[in-house]
Amino acid sequence: MTELPRDSVGLVSPETAHFDDPLALACGRTLQAYDLVYETYGTLNAERSNAILICHALSGHHHAAGYHSRDERKPGWWDAHIGPGKSIDTDRFFVVSANNLGGCHGSTGPTSLNPETDEAWGPDFPMMTVSDWVHSQARLADRLGIERFAAVVGGSLGGMQVLQWTLSYPERIANAVVIAATPKLSAQNIAFNEVARQAIRSDPDYFDGHYADHGALPRRGLKLARMVGHITYLSEDAMGSKFGRDLRSEDLNFGYDVEFQVESYLRYQGDTFSTSFDANTYLLMTKALDYFDPAAAHGGDLAAAVAPADCPFLVVSFSTDWRFPPWRSKELVNALIRAGKSVSYANIDSPHGHDAFLLPEPRYQAVFAAFMQRVARDQGLEDRP
Amino acid sequence: MTELPRDSVGLVSPETAHFDDPLALACGRTLQAYDLVYETYGTLNAERSNAILICHALSGHHHAAGYHSRDERKPGWWDAHIGPGKSIDTDRFFVVSANNLGGCHGSTGPTSLNPETDEAWGPDFPMMTVSDWVHSQARLADRLGIERFAAVVGGSLGGMQVLQWTLSYPERIANAVVIAATPKLSAQNIAFNEVARQAIRSDPDYFDGHYADHGALPRRGLKLARMVGHITYLSEDAMGSKFGRDLRSEDLNFGYDVEFQVESYLRYQGDTFSTSFDANTYLLMTKALDYFDPAAAHGGDLAAAVAPADCPFLVVSFSTDWRFPPWRSKELVNALIRAGKSVSYANIDSPHGHDAFLLPEPRYQAVFAAFMQRVARDQGLEDRP
Repeated sequence: MTELPRDSVGLVSPETAHFDDPLALACGRTLQAYDLVYETYGTLNAERSNAILICHALSGHHHAAGYHSRDERKPGWWDAHIGPGKSIDTDRFFVVSANNLGGCHGSTGPTSLNPETDEAWGPDFPMMTVSDWVHSQARLADRLGIERFAAVVGGSLGGMQVLQWTLSYPERIANAVVIAATPKLSAQNIAFNEVARQAIRSDPDYFDGHYADHGALPRRGLKLARMVGHITYLSEDAMGSKFGRDLRSEDLNFGYDVEFQVESYLRYQGDTFSTSFDANTYLLMTKALDYFDPAAAHGGDLAAAVAPADCPFLVVSFSTDWRFPPWRSKELVNALIRAGKSVSYANIDSPHGHDAFLLPEPRYQAVFAAFMQRVARDQGLEDRP
Repeated sequence: MTELPRDSVGLVSPETAHFDDPLALACGRTLQAYDLVYETYGTLNAERSNAILICHALSGHHHAAGYHSRDERKPGWWDAHIGPGKSIDTDRFFVVSANNLGGCHGSTGPTSLNPETDEAWGPDFPMMTVSDWVHSQARLADRLGIERFAAVVGGSLGGMQVLQWTLSYPERIANAVVIAATPKLSAQNIAFNEVARQAIRSDPDYFDGHYADHGALPRRGLKLARMVGHITYLSEDAMGSKFGRDLRSEDLNFGYDVEFQVESYLRYQGDTFSTSFDANTYLLMTKALDYFDPAAAHGGDLAAAVAPADCPFLVVSFSTDWRFPPWRSKELVNALIRAGKSVSYANIDSPHGHDAFLLPEPRYQAVFAAFMQRVARDQGLEDRP
């Protein structure tokens, strides 16, 4: 396209921050040095009071809004909510969005060189946790001169990072927006992740994680992992109304070629992902999800776990999300209330399942925008003209 | 064990019926000759009025009750419901249970010799449908001298066969018991089946289905297929209360070995299945599930589709079954009512998800037994002493 949409942040370029201070990780290992790739949208004000941090989900990255070039087919993954006049209004806020450590989009991760061996880390990259990510994001904030975020915002695994921010750095976060998340995975959530991991790790092209050394890619495994994931991202209804039992061609072929539209969709999604995402990163991200459980250190008492939090929360869930259903968000809401925190909660009626957090559902936008308006007002940011 | 339980049908032996009449299949091909392996429990009465046909599910087989030997660790898969004094009371009923065509437990299937080539059928075995199975079961009934079944009974894919019986042979079925089934798969159901198929078919040891010729077994694929299946058989609650987030050992290992109990369970289930079930059979069974849709030939009007049925139905669903949820059973119930059929429906409150249909849940047993009592009475079978 030559004309970018008027409500877009426009053309953006990622930047890279290099860190030389060793980062001690929850797994007991230390990352001696690392890069974080990130994007920013909008302008940091003189008071440095208008910064928003975006945390990404399992297969996300730093490119949350705008376009890397005029030829880019799609904008960043959260463009529906970040831009001039949008819920996260870049006319008022300065938005920071980084690729997580362990990722495969520019931040140090399994595909990066391990300086100690001068070879790619591959499967030897240390296991990351949500706490580690939050720690590294706080260092990025230091680098950018941001003492305190007006809000930290994220969906799904991103929402877990937001919750961790309120516990690790309560003094550095003024507001928390936790969308389509859960305070910990259920056994069923872990089970789906385990299927994805087994699919990747049992692919003969995985080579115990050293596929790069063999000039191979565990495409079959990643494809299966993504197919399983996709089923859990869509509601049964959304899948039903999108595909139903519609056939690709007029007749059944009584074979294993694609017959139903939903098969075609899943294979396409899986194929695309399998050549664009790093398998070791996928494994690591699913483990970070499994490990997240702030209540564990408090004998399972989530209200005790969230005691350090010191900011208002917005918690949002979606009616047909069966990956992290509304009652999982309510668990968090109830714990926050028991702990005496300020919390707004909205369960959005949406047919789109877990994926709804990415989409421009009007009621979701209204709730999200209203909360962010209040954030702006509290920070003394000028009203939009 | 040396003593078998008193309410068991005891030691049983499978028998094999060979058929030489060609069987024309829905896919357009013809099976020239075939075997059906089956078991029977109880005694066929002189009037031949007390026969019950059991239809099995995706990974089931003919061994539904009793023991093959005193050393057998577990009885047949539906032993909770078939035996002296049980819902399907073998003191009164004569029970027939056959392995479906295309199966891998003795009936003609992909592992059988193709008489035209003198090699195993493998992936060239014709695609089967629920109608084909019902057709072959009717021939087995002919062979056993059973003109009309007092009831045809099945759960899950077995329930679909029961429904098809009422449409293909309304004059040969006096009662239908359809448990934890659906009149057609949803897009999500098909999606899960497709993941299972892709897992098997993308396993390099699958060799386009000719794994036997290569001395190979697509174990990785079958294991993944079974793992995915197992998640859908258990309710989220059942998985949660069975495993929760319990760890195998005391600490996280920050690696990819088993950490959570649920991972261990799924891997074990997958491993066991991957060496005991035939991959081509699994593929074929999932396709039979996908294809089943009696309403399709009636423009989607299920009430029109069930018009030929001419017997009372018992339809049973389970509250936490999310594979074939209660509302899918209600679809069938509503269509039967609209079509003016006699139907009893029970939604059983159970925590066990889809697997509940295999288990001895008391309320389920009570409903099932009451219906079968009525069946016995209608057939003029003597009351139990």
